[in-house]
Amino acid sequence: MAAVDNFADRLAEAVERKRSQVVVGLDPDYDLLPPAVRERPERIDSADEQARRAGAYRTFLLDLMGGLAPVAVAAKIQLAYLEALGPPGWLLYHELTAAARELGLLVIADAKRGDIGSTAEAYAQAHLDVAGADAVTVNPWFGTDGLEPFLRRAREEGKGVFLLVKTSNPSSAEIQDLSLPDGRPVYEHVAALLGAWAQGSHGSRGYASVGAVVGATHPEAARGLRRLLPGIPFLIPGYGTQGGAAEDLRGIFDPKGLGAVVNSSRSILYAYRARGGDWLEAAQAEAEDMRRALWEVARS
Amino acid sequence: MAAVDNFADRLAEAVERKRSQVVVGLDPDYDLLPPAVRERPERIDSADEQARRAGAYRTFLLDLMGGLAPVAVAAKIQLAYLEALGPPGWLLYHELTAAARELGLLVIADAKRGDIGSTAEAYAQAHLDVAGADAVTVNPWFGTDGLEPFLRRAREEGKGVFLLVKTSNPSSAEIQDLSLPDGRPVYEHVAALLGAWAQGSHGSRGYASVGAVVGATHPEAARGLRRLLPGIPFLIPGYGTQGGAAEDLRGIFDPKGLGAVVNSSRSILYAYRARGGDWLEAAQAEAEDMRRALWEVARS
Repeated sequence: MAAVDNFADRLAEAVERKRSQVVVGLDPDYDLLPPAVRERPERIDSADEQARRAGAYRTFLLDLMGGLAPVAVAAKIQLAYLEALGPPGWLLYHELTAAARELGLLVIADAKRGDIGSTAEAYAQAHLDVAGADAVTVNPWFGTDGLEPFLRRAREEGKGVFLLVKTSNPSSAEIQDLSLPDGRPVYEHVAALLGAWAQGSHGSRGYASVGAVVGATHPEAARGLRRLLPGIPFLIPGYGTQGGAAEDLRGIFDPKGLGAVVNSSRSILYAYRARGGDWLEAAQAEAEDMRRALWEVARS
Repeated sequence: MAAVDNFADRLAEAVERKRSQVVVGLDPDYDLLPPAVRERPERIDSADEQARRAGAYRTFLLDLMGGLAPVAVAAKIQLAYLEALGPPGWLLYHELTAAARELGLLVIADAKRGDIGSTAEAYAQAHLDVAGADAVTVNPWFGTDGLEPFLRRAREEGKGVFLLVKTSNPSSAEIQDLSLPDGRPVYEHVAALLGAWAQGSHGSRGYASVGAVVGATHPEAARGLRRLLPGIPFLIPGYGTQGGAAEDLRGIFDPKGLGAVVNSSRSILYAYRARGGDWLEAAQAEAEDMRRALWEVARS
């Protein structure tokens, strides 16, 4: 398979070219939108509140992606916020995916889907084929047969999959950290399964197109998983607002800066609230600071 | 809280009134649609393939729900098949929810969502508030903070939640059946958490509005969970095509026939393929056979 057709290779190529591990998370929150976006009168062209909000999100996120395309390697689209707008939100999802790809941003559909065989196939279709995302986040709870439609697209169609191994939220411990009789937590058992699920999806740089979601809020767990899963790319949420910092991620990257990409959503999107000034310039400055901090940790 | 405002009570009331535990799963599959629906020319009113398919699904599912409303207590809408149609599918989701409610069918959004705090809130909003479903299926992998937005709506807003405790697929064992040091499988630990999560959501008949998804394909597990979770309603998928039978469910219902509802999708939707004749009459006959078989097991 040509390198360009493999998700792991496309991601690595973007990291090297942009010298960046930054993923910008598109978590639109109407109440936090810059007033300039919320109030732009020509956007309030519908009596329908959801369509009006979708219009504001569209303006905001398209401008944002345009401004961040040189700094970020991927846009992570958080489906929940779009679903909460009903049909206009789903339309916007497809628009955002197309726009991101045109801007040279990889698209990670943060859908966290999981279901049994034929239904999982429909979810894989929905996000990777129809909406056209490059990669999708999936939940491991169902085991192999619920994942196979996603894994097949990673092996055969150049798509990417990120499995929720250890999530960033505090109560992730309730199930993910349960101790098994051999002393391992459940999430390490999932990591072992992931090693098998990733077979056949590797690109030319040694990384698989099936990766792991590992929260920046659990740096010890992240380092342990790094040792267990040498060829598995990590998608690391929880940076910034949730508390994760670049320093915590020392040892997660390989000497070329590959092996992990790091998501920040609110700290970038709403940076104007802390930094003041133009909202897009604030977002760009925040993303650039994050890029530099991560690159330094990765290459040191 | 008035009985009518509690999901558990609304479900129990429907079971008693219709003498039925049947939930019809809306899993539209274009290739299996009755030819009469697929080929109805007035439905092919769009050049867009997805909109055309959504039109065929609409015809099929509205007619189906109309025919099954006397026999079924709820419609379980499988989001994956609608998402695979892109924006027209999401529009159809909202239409189906409204139509089902008008027909007196409770709506279970089979979304299997799961995410962290603020994102989980957006998913709860999307399905329970905006789309207007009565209940939604959720994935336990994130633990309490990912579930709280759903649980709050069950405690305070008369909504229902079904947690994926033991799913019907063969590889559910890979994570859900892992043995913990005390010998319990992980899914029983989830069941224990569910007992706590359901607090404050009980209706006047002793059942909670926070229930458990338990596959009909694992009758032993279902009976064990029934003993562990006396006041928790079960949503049981896997009946019919997936191999579950009424006889396997003996002991799952209480003497009034309450305590569990059972989903069948393909065996009802595409009953015409086995039974011949008019597709809707075949679906009605299949659902009525299922109703009678379950009612007999439940009341014996």
